[in-house]
Amino acid sequence: MNPPSIAEIEAAAVRLAGHAVVTPLLSSPLLDDRLGGRLLIKAEPLQRTGSFKYRGAFNRISLIPEAERGRGVVAYSSGNHAQGVAAAARDLGLQATIVMPADSPAIKLRNTHAWGARVVTYDRHRESREEIGAALTAETGATLVKPYDDPGVIAGQGTVGLELAAQAAALGLVPEAVLVPASGGGLLAGIALAVAARLPGCPVWAVEPAGYDDTARSLAAGRRLAITGEPQSFCDALLMTIPGEITFEINQRRVAGGLVVSDGEVAAAMAVAFDAFKLVVEPGGAVALAAVLSGKIPCRGRTLAVVCSGGNVDPAVFAAALAAPAPTA
Amino acid sequence: MNPPSIAEIEAAAVRLAGHAVVTPLLSSPLLDDRLGGRLLIKAEPLQRTGSFKYRGAFNRISLIPEAERGRGVVAYSSGNHAQGVAAAARDLGLQATIVMPADSPAIKLRNTHAWGARVVTYDRHRESREEIGAALTAETGATLVKPYDDPGVIAGQGTVGLELAAQAAALGLVPEAVLVPASGGGLLAGIALAVAARLPGCPVWAVEPAGYDDTARSLAAGRRLAITGEPQSFCDALLMTIPGEITFEINQRRVAGGLVVSDGEVAAAMAVAFDAFKLVVEPGGAVALAAVLSGKIPCRGRTLAVVCSGGNVDPAVFAAALAAPAPTA
Repeated sequence: MNPPSIAEIEAAAVRLAGHAVVTPLLSSPLLDDRLGGRLLIKAEPLQRTGSFKYRGAFNRISLIPEAERGRGVVAYSSGNHAQGVAAAARDLGLQATIVMPADSPAIKLRNTHAWGARVVTYDRHRESREEIGAALTAETGATLVKPYDDPGVIAGQGTVGLELAAQAAALGLVPEAVLVPASGGGLLAGIALAVAARLPGCPVWAVEPAGYDDTARSLAAGRRLAITGEPQSFCDALLMTIPGEITFEINQRRVAGGLVVSDGEVAAAMAVAFDAFKLVVEPGGAVALAAVLSGKIPCRGRTLAVVCSGGNVDPAVFAAALAAPAPTA
Repeated sequence: MNPPSIAEIEAAAVRLAGHAVVTPLLSSPLLDDRLGGRLLIKAEPLQRTGSFKYRGAFNRISLIPEAERGRGVVAYSSGNHAQGVAAAARDLGLQATIVMPADSPAIKLRNTHAWGARVVTYDRHRESREEIGAALTAETGATLVKPYDDPGVIAGQGTVGLELAAQAAALGLVPEAVLVPASGGGLLAGIALAVAARLPGCPVWAVEPAGYDDTARSLAAGRRLAITGEPQSFCDALLMTIPGEITFEINQRRVAGGLVVSDGEVAAAMAVAFDAFKLVVEPGGAVALAAVLSGKIPCRGRTLAVVCSGGNVDPAVFAAALAAPAPTA
C-alpha cells in the first residue's frame, strides 16, 4: 500500500476543519530559560477525546463509501484510538463497536462508552484483539478502523505536523527537530510525511518508553523487530511490541532514529507539563517531552518541537506522577 | 476616574498582540451531554504566567511614559498579579519589585523570582501590602501597578471578553451568560465592559468562594461592603475582602449578580477540568466552572461561557482536589 501523499494529508486537514480542534502550540519562557533553548509543545490533550487519535479516525471513517456506512465500524485499542473512533463515528453518524483490553484505564473505558460506542472487552494477556476485531467485521460487515496501519489513518494524524509547522512559522520559529511518541507508528509516520514537506531537512525523532523500544531497534536494524516478554511500563498508550508494516515503511525512510525514556523521566515530564504548561498529559503522551527534559537530545541554543499526544490519565496515576521525585539527569 | 471605553479595551488587544496568548475556548461534548447544554471554557491557565493577570499588567505598564520607565514598577499581590507584572515588566524592559504574602503558594513565589523580579515578602495577617507598596514607590519613584483598581489594568483584562465573544461567534454560538471569578473585580469589570459591547444583553455573573462573597453582597446592597474576619478558603487568588472602587462602579452597573461556591464544589470543578478539558486550574480559577457544575445557574438547553482564570496551583493541592469526593449537587 502506498504511503499517503502530502496532498492526502492536506485533504484530511480540510475534512477535519470544524470537527477536530486546532490544538495550540504552547511555550513557557521560564522553562526555556532553564533549557537555554526554545521548546514548543503541540498540545493534543486539548484535542477532541483528549488525544490525537480523533484525527486519524475521523479521516479514515470519512473515506468509507456511503453504501457501507450503515454497517458501522469496529476498532480495537488500548484506549485512545477507541475514544477517537467512537467520537468520530458518532460525529459522522455511524455505529461503532470497540474492542478494548479489560485492564484499560477506567477513564478510557468509561469515555468510550459515553461516546455511544458498544464496548467489547478482552484479556490482553490471553486473547488477540486482531482476531476478535476480524471476527466482528466478518460477522457484521462493519469496516475495521485500524489504529495505525492504514493510509487514511496516517494522513489524519499527519495534520498534527501541518499545524505544528504553520504555528511555529506564525511565531517566526523554525523547529530544528520534532519529537513524537511512537507505538504502532501512525502519528510518527503522518508527522514525518508532513514535516518532510513543510520543514524540509528537519529531523523527526521517535520516542518510546523503556522496554517498548521496538521502533528504535527496528530503525537501527533497518527491519521490523519485535520486543519480547512483557516489560513493565506505565505508558499504557504505547505498549505495542512491533512497528506497523505501512508505518515502518514510511518511518524507516523519514525518521532520524529512536530515543528511549524511563518511567521516572516520563513522570517528571508530566510534572513539568503541569507546572509550566498547565496541561494534563498522560504517561504515553509525555515521552517526547521527557526525552528533551532528560537531555536525550540537546536543546541548548536550539528550537525543538515535541508532540504531547494525549491526556487521558486516571487521577491517581497523575497525582502519583506529580509527587514522584524528579530523576537526576 | 472614568471606566475604560470599549476603544481602550480594543487598544489593549492591539498592544497585547504577539505578547499575550490568545487562549483557546475549550468545550467537551461528553460534559455537554451530562449538562444537557453547551459549556464554553476560556482557558486562561494557558496564558503567559499561567493566569489572565499578564494581560492587565502588560497593558498598564505599556502606558507608563518613557521618562518614568527607568524607575521601574512595584506591585503587591497574592501571587498571580505578581507573576503577571514581573513577566510583563521583563517583556517591556522594566525592573519590577513585587510585594508578596510570605505564605503565598511556593510556585507563585518561585516563578515571580524566576521572571526576574525583586520579591519582598510580608505577613498577610499583620502588615498592609498597600503601605509597603506605597513606601517602595515613594522611595524609588517606581510606578505602582495596582492589581485591579486601575483603568489600564481593567482594559487589559477586558481583552478576555473580546476574545471570548469572537471565539464563540466563530463556533456559531452566542453565550446566554458569562461567569467570571471575582476578587478585586478587575477581570469581572473588563469582561463586563467587553461583553456589553460585543454580546449586548448577555448577563455577566461574578462568582466567589464562600466566605469571600463581598462582591455578591455589595452588588445586592448597591454599595461596597467588606467581609469581616478571616474565613477559611483554599481559593488563595480570591481572598480580597472588599470590591475595588473603580471596579465596583463598573460592576454595579454591568454585572447581573454574584454567585457563591464552596471549597468542595471548587475541588470537584478542578477534577472536572482535569478530566474533561485536560486543563490544570487553580482553586480561585475554578469558581465560575464550579458555579455551573453545582447548578448555581441553569445550563440545560443553554449555552454558557465560564472563565477559568488561572492554573498556578501547588501539586499537592491539585492532587488533593482530584482525590476529593465530589459533593452531591
